[in-house]
Formats: sequence, structure tokens, C-alpha cells
Amino acid sequence: MVTKSELKYIQSLSDKKVRLETGCFIAEGVKLVGEMIAAGYPLKAVYALDSWESPDTSIEVTRIEAFELEKMSMLQTPNQVLAVAMMPQQIKALDLTGQLTLVLDGIQDPGNMGTIIRTADWFGIRQIVASEDTADVYNPKVIGATMGSFMRVSVTYKHLADWMPTVKLPVYGALLAGENIFTTKAPNGGLLVIGSEGKGIRENILDQITHPVTIPKIGGAESLNAGVAAGIIIAQLTR
Amino acid sequence: MVTKSELKYIQSLSDKKVRLETGCFIAEGVKLVGEMIAAGYPLKAVYALDSWESPDTSIEVTRIEAFELEKMSMLQTPNQVLAVAMMPQQIKALDLTGQLTLVLDGIQDPGNMGTIIRTADWFGIRQIVASEDTADVYNPKVIGATMGSFMRVSVTYKHLADWMPTVKLPVYGALLAGENIFTTKAPNGGLLVIGSEGKGIRENILDQITHPVTIPKIGGAESLNAGVAAGIIIAQLTR
Repeated sequence: MVTKSELKYIQSLSDKKVRLETGCFIAEGVKLVGEMIAAGYPLKAVYALDSWESPDTSIEVTRIEAFELEKMSMLQTPNQVLAVAMMPQQIKALDLTGQLTLVLDGIQDPGNMGTIIRTADWFGIRQIVASEDTADVYNPKVIGATMGSFMRVSVTYKHLADWMPTVKLPVYGALLAGENIFTTKAPNGGLLVIGSEGKGIRENILDQITHPVTIPKIGGAESLNAGVAAGIIIAQLTR
Repeated sequence: MVTKSELKYIQSLSDKKVRLETGCFIAEGVKLVGEMIAAGYPLKAVYALDSWESPDTSIEVTRIEAFELEKMSMLQTPNQVLAVAMMPQQIKALDLTGQLTLVLDGIQDPGNMGTIIRTADWFGIRQIVASEDTADVYNPKVIGATMGSFMRVSVTYKHLADWMPTVKLPVYGALLAGENIFTTKAPNGGLLVIGSEGKGIRENILDQITHPVTIPKIGGAESLNAGVAAGIIIAQLTR
């Protein structure tokens, strides 16, 4: 059983403002919640159908009915379990030396954002700095699309035009005219800036790019999907 | 003005069976429909708001109201124009020599399917052979996600387990244990098989793979998004 006020609270977590105020966010589905429990991620509450078996019986679970899960879920097809999780209270300080840090400029689509976090995780990138208008990492759709990678990749939001000039490292950026990414040498450390599909890297940080790179086009498509382009460039620069 | 029967017909085109029977499909939005008109793609009807300016005034346009467009549109935010287009009557015969042909095994997500077609187009791949349970290229969501690339990349549906043994060419396939894709030499021609995110390449065609390839993992993610993985591999094999 879930109370009306609990239900209202859970639904309110789709709102970024409420997430920031409460420090809580939602994660859904057997695989994701299972992975979070296995990793010891701090959970505030777990709601699940009777069919769901918790991988850790010491965690308190509120058993609910399918119609209740449907009401609280943000998924089209709710998947047995929903957790209210707590954001880390202390955010790790940025450490830019000797590693590639991803910089996201205006990636507003939650699916693309989540996919990029997951790709970063695959290739061993541990930190992302995002413009303030990039999708919130704790948006339920982003959390879902990361497939658990949000636990291993930290995302910090900054005013990029103020922050980037303080960084004294090579800055790679995906631009239309740049060095062929397939012959670019992977850097020892630095920033890699990815812009949105529609706007690319925006004017106000364009002069911060010291190493423009390009994915050469052979065929007819006008552009690549932002997540795919990010994947191809990250793969090359982390080899 | 749109008649009730026209509206009903347009809505019915979200159904694959109806599309196959009528040979028609739907394309939406200013950019996509504009590109199709510019390319001379055969259109059966064009419905548009008064605000839409046709790039070719010789094409007949039915002017409609916003509420009518909303009723016929498959988009969350309808974008001024919707076209009923005609599938090509003659499908180009497959030509496998001297080029890389993409093979899709059970890619059911329309967004992933569209993104892969768009990526193939960017890297100059002109033909795709897909398993019969792969998303229909004329599904409105696939058409939308291709961003026009469906006009340049042909998709043929085949029973892969029957068809693949008839092909006497190298067959690359993304598997968990294979040659490092970053050191694999791009082939002169052959097939590249991409499986779905959940299932990978399925058992029944696994023994057809002559060149297993892998994207080495550095970090913690369990898998890559299917579109991203396809993009990284296609990029490497078409360099």
C-alpha cells in the first residue's frame, strides 16, 4: 500500500526543482534498482510488486499493487520496482590531470544525455562537466538511459564560458572543419567538448577549442545523431 | 480541410499491414518533407498549415487547420506539414561486391533503427539487409529518426539464417570476444552484422560470422547503446 501523500511526493520528483530541494530522485526497473542495491547506492524507499525479489533482504520494501506502480512510474511499461534514491551529498572535486574530461554543451535531450554518460562509462571517462542548460542527470529519463552508469560517472554543472578559460589543458571539440578524428592522437589529458545536434558547440565557448576534430563524411546524411557522434569521438580519444 | 475518410486512412498508415497493402507511408515535419520534395521523392498527398511554404509550388497541397494536423500526426509536437509518400515500386537488387553491406539482426527499437540508417548513410553504406523482425523502415518513427537517410540507403528484409549462407564474403559481427575493432583492417567488401542491445547476434546466424570484432571496454558500463556501438564499428570498417 502506498499513501496518497507518498504517491504525490514520488510524482513530484519528475520536477527538477523538487529533486534539488529534497536531494532525491527516482530509479526504476528490475535491472537498474538491482544494480543500485548491489552497489550499495543509498536508497530512501523501495516500492515493488510481490513478484519482485530483492537481491538484499535487509532493505525495507513497500509492497504495492500493479495499479499503484503504474500511477507512480514514469515508464510506459512499469517494471516491478521503483526506488527513491538519494543524490550523493558530497560531490567529488574535479580532477582534470591525466584524464579526459567530457564537456557537454546544451545536450537537452534526456535520452542522448543518458546514452553519452553510458558511453563515457564504457570508455573509462569518470567525469563530465555540463552547461547549465544540459539535461539534469537525475531526470528519470536520463537515469534510465544511463543503465546504471550515473553511479560511476560524476556530472558537474557549470557556466562553461566562465569555467573553461580557467582550464589550462588541450580542449578537443567536434566541429565541422577540424582534424580527421581517425588520425588524431589520443591526448594524455584534456577536455572533449560535445555540442547538441541542432546547435553544435555554441559561439560563446568556440574560441576555447584548441583542437577542433571532425568525423569525415563519406555519404549523404546531413549530420550524425549526437550520441553516435559522441561515441565515435570518445572511442578515438580514449584508445 | 481534410475529410473523415482521409484522416482515417492517414491514421491507419501507422499499421505496417496497411502500409504494405497500400505501398504508402507517412513523413512529417518541415525539414524532412522539404528534403523529400527537393529530392523528387514520390508523394501522394501533402497536408500543411497555412504557415508552411512549399519549396515547389507545382506540388498540390491540402491546407488544414492545426487541430486537424494534430489528429493525423504521429509526433508529440506536429510540425506544420505531413506527407503521404509512396514506397519505391522497384527495389534495387542487392549488389554485395566491393562494398560493406550492413546486416541488422532483430533491431526492434524504431529510434535505434533510424539512427543506424542515418549513420550508415553518413559513412557511405548504401544497403542494409535486415531480419524479418527488425523494425519496418517505413514505420513513421523510423522514417523520422533517419532524417531523410531512408532515401539514400535501401533496406531489404530477409530470413537471415537462410540468406547468409548464400553469401561468399567475409562476415564481420560485433561480439563480446573478437578482434579489437580499432586494429581491424577495413575490408574491401563484406557483411557487418549488428545485433540488438538485449540479445546481441542470435544463435541461428552466429556460425556465419567469419570475423568477430569487439569494442574494448575500459570502464564499468555493461554494454553500449546499439546505435552507438553500430556507429563506432561502422566508422572503423569504412575508414
